[in-house]
Amino acid sequence: VNATDLAARVRAGDVRALARAISLVENETALALPLIAALHPHSGHACVIGLTGPPGAGKSTLVDGLTGEWRRRGWRVGILAVDPTSPFTGGALLGDRVRMQGHAADAGVFIRSLATRGHLGGLSRATGDVALVLDAAGYDLVLIETVGVGQDEVEVVRTADLSIVVVVPGMGDDVQALKAGVMEIADIFVVNKADREGDDRAVASLETLLSLQAFDEGAWRPPVLRTEATTGEGIGALADAIERFRSGSADERASRRRVRTSVRVRDLVSRLLLAHVQGQTLAPGEFDALIDRVEARELDPHAAAVLIADRVLRRA
Amino acid sequence: VNATDLAARVRAGDVRALARAISLVENETALALPLIAALHPHSGHACVIGLTGPPGAGKSTLVDGLTGEWRRRGWRVGILAVDPTSPFTGGALLGDRVRMQGHAADAGVFIRSLATRGHLGGLSRATGDVALVLDAAGYDLVLIETVGVGQDEVEVVRTADLSIVVVVPGMGDDVQALKAGVMEIADIFVVNKADREGDDRAVASLETLLSLQAFDEGAWRPPVLRTEATTGEGIGALADAIERFRSGSADERASRRRVRTSVRVRDLVSRLLLAHVQGQTLAPGEFDALIDRVEARELDPHAAAVLIADRVLRRA
Repeated sequence: VNATDLAARVRAGDVRALARAISLVENETALALPLIAALHPHSGHACVIGLTGPPGAGKSTLVDGLTGEWRRRGWRVGILAVDPTSPFTGGALLGDRVRMQGHAADAGVFIRSLATRGHLGGLSRATGDVALVLDAAGYDLVLIETVGVGQDEVEVVRTADLSIVVVVPGMGDDVQALKAGVMEIADIFVVNKADREGDDRAVASLETLLSLQAFDEGAWRPPVLRTEATTGEGIGALADAIERFRSGSADERASRRRVRTSVRVRDLVSRLLLAHVQGQTLAPGEFDALIDRVEARELDPHAAAVLIADRVLRRA
Repeated sequence: VNATDLAARVRAGDVRALARAISLVENETALALPLIAALHPHSGHACVIGLTGPPGAGKSTLVDGLTGEWRRRGWRVGILAVDPTSPFTGGALLGDRVRMQGHAADAGVFIRSLATRGHLGGLSRATGDVALVLDAAGYDLVLIETVGVGQDEVEVVRTADLSIVVVVPGMGDDVQALKAGVMEIADIFVVNKADREGDDRAVASLETLLSLQAFDEGAWRPPVLRTEATTGEGIGALADAIERFRSGSADERASRRRVRTSVRVRDLVSRLLLAHVQGQTLAPGEFDALIDRVEARELDPHAAAVLIADRVLRRA
C-alpha cells in the first residue's frame, strides 16, 4: 500500500482501510509517518474525549450508554479502549465482553482496543496518532477509555479535548486520591452507579473540593453528574454536558489544544534524540560501558547523562 | 552550605543535614548535582523497596507494621511516601495521620513525604535521587510508598530493588487490572486485610495468574502473602520474604539494578537535551511558531519534531 491512497480511502469512509491504517500507525511501521502526514491536514474536527476512573467504576457500561445516546443524536463515534480491564481489549478475566457488541453492526461506531504491548501504564504511545486517524476519517467524537489513578490520566489529558473522570460512591479513598491530581484534569465528574450507598457523600466531596478551587470568569467549571449506567439514568444529562463543553469557549479549547500539541511535539523530539543517541552518537557498547561505570560508582547517573548529552551536542 | 561538607554530615548520621540534603535534591537546586556526586560513591548498600496498591488497600498500616518489624530486626529504615492519599503527605482528607507517629521519635526511622508538585502521577521525579541520599546515609531499607494502577508502578520499578504490590480482597476488578501489567512488576504480592471476605478468591486469582507465567530455574517466583496489618498478622512472614529476596540471586539483583540505571540515565539525557532545545537550539518564540504551524495543519507533529531534532543535531 501507498500512504496517499490509504489516506484517501480512510477519508472516504472505507472501514477496512481505517482498520489497516490504525494498525500501521499503532505498530509504528514505516508507513505510519507518511499516513499521519497525509491525514493530519484533514483532522481537527473531532472532539477527543478521555474517560478514566478506577477499576470497577463501570466505565465500559457508561461508554456503551453514551455511544447509544450519541448515535441517537446523529454523531459518528470512534472508541479506543486502552483499559487493560476493558472487555474490548480482551484483558478481562471476568468482565463481560458482550456489552459493546450491540454497536458492532452499526457503521457509525468504530471500536478498537489498543494493545499496551508490554508497556505498563494504560495509554499506548501511539494513542494520539490513532485518535488523529479516526478524526480524519470523519468521526465526530473519539472516546478514549483508560483506567487508573496517576500517570495514565495525564496521558489522557495530553490526547483529549475533554476529560471525564468516573468515580464510584463508597470509595472515600478515591476521592482523596482525586484531590492530589485528578481534580486538575477532570472537565466532567461522573459519580456512576448512583444507586449505591454513599453517592451523596461522593458528590458532596467532589463539590467541596471544587469549591476550594478558583475558576476564572467564564471558564468551564467541571460539573458533577450522577449516572446509573445500567439503567441509562443520567446518560442524557452527561451527553448534554459534553455538548455544552464543546460549544463553550473556543479560545479555551484552542489554548488547550496548543498545550497538548506542544507536549506531543516535545515528546516526539525527545524520542528522536534518544534514538539518535543509541544509534549514532554512541558507539556500540559505549552506553553499556558508561552504565558499568555508574554501577561501579565511578560516575553518578547525572554525570553520565551530561557526558552523553555533551556528545550529542558535540560540545565534548 | 557546601556539597562536600553536607554529604559528610549526611554520612555521619546528622539527621538535620539529611533532611536538608533531601530538600536540596528534591527541589532540584544547584547543590543537588554536586551532592549526589558526593554521595553516589557511598550508595548501593540499601535495599530499595517499592510498595504500591490501590487507594484503600491499607498500605500505610502495612508500612507501619513492617517498620516496627524491621526495627525489631535491627534494620535502619527510611520511608518515602509519594502517595497523595498517604497520611504522611498530608494529602489525606479523612485518613489518619497519626499511625506512623509512633516511629517519629525513633532515630532508626526516617520518614519523608515527597510532594508531587503539581505533577500528576505518583512518583516525584527526584525520588530516585532522594532514595540514593538515604542509601548513602546508611539506611538499610528504603521503602517508597506509592499509589495507583498504571504508570506509577513502572516508576517504582525504575527506582526499587524489590516491588511489593498490595491487593485488597473483594476487588475482583483489581486483579484484572493487575493482569495487564502489574503482574510483571510485583516481586511479592500482599493480600491485605485478609479477614475480609474474598481473600481466598484474591489469593487464588493471583496464584492462577502466576501459574500462567514461566519462571526460569532458580528465578524468583513472587509469593502471595496474606496480611492483616491492623493486627500485625502476616507481617513477620512478609519481612521474611523480603529478606529471602535480598539474600537471593546476586546476579538477578545486579542485572535489575543495571536496567534501572540504564533507564534512569536515558531519562536524564532526555531531560538535558530537551532543556537545550528550549534554551539554546531554538530562538525565543521559534517553538511557538512551529506549534502554530502544526495547529494550522501546515505541519504534522512528527514533521515538527523532526525539524527540531535536526536542528539539535545540526543536520539542518
